[in-house]
Amino acid sequence: SDATASEAARARNLQLTKPPAALGRLEDLAIWYAGWRGAARPRLEKPQVIVFAGNHGITAQGVSAFPAEVTVQMVANFKAGGAAINQLAAAFGAQMSVVELDLERPTEDFTKGPAMSQADCVAALKAGWEAVDPQADLLVVGEMGIGNTTSAAAVACALFGGTAATWVGRGTGVDDAGLLIKERVVSEGAALHASRAPLEILAALGGRELAGMAGAIARARVARIPVILDGFICTAAAATLEKAVAGALDHAVAGHVSAEQAHVRVLEHLGKEPLLSLGMRLGEGSGAALAMGILKGAIACHSGMSTFAEAGVSEGA
Amino acid sequence: SDATASEAARARNLQLTKPPAALGRLEDLAIWYAGWRGAARPRLEKPQVIVFAGNHGITAQGVSAFPAEVTVQMVANFKAGGAAINQLAAAFGAQMSVVELDLERPTEDFTKGPAMSQADCVAALKAGWEAVDPQADLLVVGEMGIGNTTSAAAVACALFGGTAATWVGRGTGVDDAGLLIKERVVSEGAALHASRAPLEILAALGGRELAGMAGAIARARVARIPVILDGFICTAAAATLEKAVAGALDHAVAGHVSAEQAHVRVLEHLGKEPLLSLGMRLGEGSGAALAMGILKGAIACHSGMSTFAEAGVSEGA
Repeated sequence: SDATASEAARARNLQLTKPPAALGRLEDLAIWYAGWRGAARPRLEKPQVIVFAGNHGITAQGVSAFPAEVTVQMVANFKAGGAAINQLAAAFGAQMSVVELDLERPTEDFTKGPAMSQADCVAALKAGWEAVDPQADLLVVGEMGIGNTTSAAAVACALFGGTAATWVGRGTGVDDAGLLIKERVVSEGAALHASRAPLEILAALGGRELAGMAGAIARARVARIPVILDGFICTAAAATLEKAVAGALDHAVAGHVSAEQAHVRVLEHLGKEPLLSLGMRLGEGSGAALAMGILKGAIACHSGMSTFAEAGVSEGA
Repeated sequence: SDATASEAARARNLQLTKPPAALGRLEDLAIWYAGWRGAARPRLEKPQVIVFAGNHGITAQGVSAFPAEVTVQMVANFKAGGAAINQLAAAFGAQMSVVELDLERPTEDFTKGPAMSQADCVAALKAGWEAVDPQADLLVVGEMGIGNTTSAAAVACALFGGTAATWVGRGTGVDDAGLLIKERVVSEGAALHASRAPLEILAALGGRELAGMAGAIARARVARIPVILDGFICTAAAATLEKAVAGALDHAVAGHVSAEQAHVRVLEHLGKEPLLSLGMRLGEGSGAALAMGILKGAIACHSGMSTFAEAGVSEGA
C-alpha cells in the first residue's frame, strides 16, 4: 500500500461535508482503496470477476447434495449468462470470465494421498495469476466445484487446527448422512496432510479452483488491485497465502460472511470483518460481487463529495 | 401486496439455478419486491431519492454540534451535487430531489408547546406526498435538519415509552454537556406530548422534514412503490405511521442500522431487520441509498437467472 496516498486520502476524508466518521466503515474502505491504488481520490471503473471451476475426487465418497456433473453444467450456465454471478457482475458493471481447470480430470481423493501433484497445483495457481486483467481496479474471485466445501473445510482444518466437525457444514445442502461423511473425510485428510507448509496444504487438500483463486489474489497484490473475498471456499483458499506470508491479504477485504458455519471462523483467524451478512451461501463470488456495491458507494462518496471549504458549509464545534 | 405475484415469484425462485435458499435474504427481498410491484419477474429501473430539509426551534437550547444555519448550507450542497447522498444516488442510478420545508421558519421549541401546528404538519405531509414520482419503482427518503436527532428521539420516546436517556445519542457529534441537554429536552417534550395520537406526536415533537418523509412513505404505499428506510430519524418518522395503522410499513425494509444507538431499538419495535450495519450515522438517506445496491442485486438475480430446466442443470438430491 502507498502510504502517501493513504495519508492524502485520510486528510481529504476529514474535509468532506459530513460530521467526522459519519460514513462509518465506508470511510475506512475508501482510504484503504486509495492506498492500494496509489491515488488520494481514486475511481472504481474496471472491476473484474473471475469464476474458477474444478472437480473433486472426494465427491466419490458422497459429500455433496449435487452430482459432480453439475460443475460442468454450471460452467455452461456461466457462459450463457444464466447464473447468479452473471447478474451481479452485470449489475455492478464488472467484466466477468470463467476459467475451467481440467474439469474432465478431477483431483485425487485427499484421504488417500495429495489431491493435486505439485505440478498440477502450480498450473492452477498460474492459470489464476494469468486470468487477472492488469488494468482492472478491483478483483472478485469466485468458484464452482461440486464437493469444494469439503475441500475448503479440510484446508481450514489443516491450517488452523481444531476438530473436523467445527469446519464442516451443509454446503449446497447435504443431508445428515452426508454431513457425517464430510466430517470423516475432513478428519482423515487433515490428519494425513496438516504437517505440510501452507501452499502444500493447498495442493494436498485444495482443488484446482481453490489454487486458481489463490493465484489470482496473489497476482492482484503485485498489480495493486484490491480484492473482495467471497465466502468460505474463497476465504479458505486465500488463507493459505496469509499463512504462508503474513500480510499477504492486506489488499483484500471480506465481502460477506456466509451461512456456511465455518466461514466466520476463518474470517476471525484472518482478522477480517465482513461487509455484509445476508445469509448467502452460493459461492460463485456472489457475496463478494454484491459487496462491490458497498465499495462503489464508499469510493463515490470519498472522491465525489465537496469539502467544507468548497461547499461553504460551517464545520462543527 | 399482490398475493398472486408473490406466489409466482416464490415459485420462480425455487426453479433458479442455485441450491434452495442459497441467496439468503436476497431471495426474500426479491419476492417482497415482486409482491409490491405486482410482477413475478420485476425490474428495478427508476429509483427515487428525496431529501427533506427542515429547521428546529429546539436547537436554541444547544442540542447539536453544528449551528442551525448548516441546514440551509447543506441544502445548497445537495443542489450543487456535493453531498454524500448525491454521490450515492448517482452511483445507483437514482433520480434525486431536495424539498426545503420553510427553512426560514423553524419549528417551535417542543418543550413549551407543539413543534408544529396541525396545519403546518399537514402541509409538510402533503409536500412529502406530492414529492413522490408515481412512476418510481423504489423510494428512499432522507433528511437534513440540524437538531433532528433530538426531535426523532422525542418522537420515539413518546411512541414507545422508556426513559429519554435510552433514546438520545451523539447525533452529528454533540459533546457530553449537549447530550445532557438532549436528554432533558426529550424527557420534557415526551412528558408534555406522549398522550397524543401517533400523528399528533409527529406534529408535536417532529419536524417538517420528519412529516415530509412520513407523507412520502404513505404515498409510496398507495402507489405500490417499495421503500428502503434510512437511519434513526427516518425510521422514527416512519414509526408514527405504523403506530397509527398497523402494517403501514409493510412496503418498507430497513436499509441499515445506524451508529445512533437508539436506531436499533426503533427497528426492533417495528420488527425490521436491517440489511446493512456499517457504522454509518449521516442521515440524508445515505444508508438507505447504499442498500439500493443490495436490492438491485437481489432483483437482478431473481429476474435474470436461468431456471434448472432452461440451463440444463441437474437438481439436488
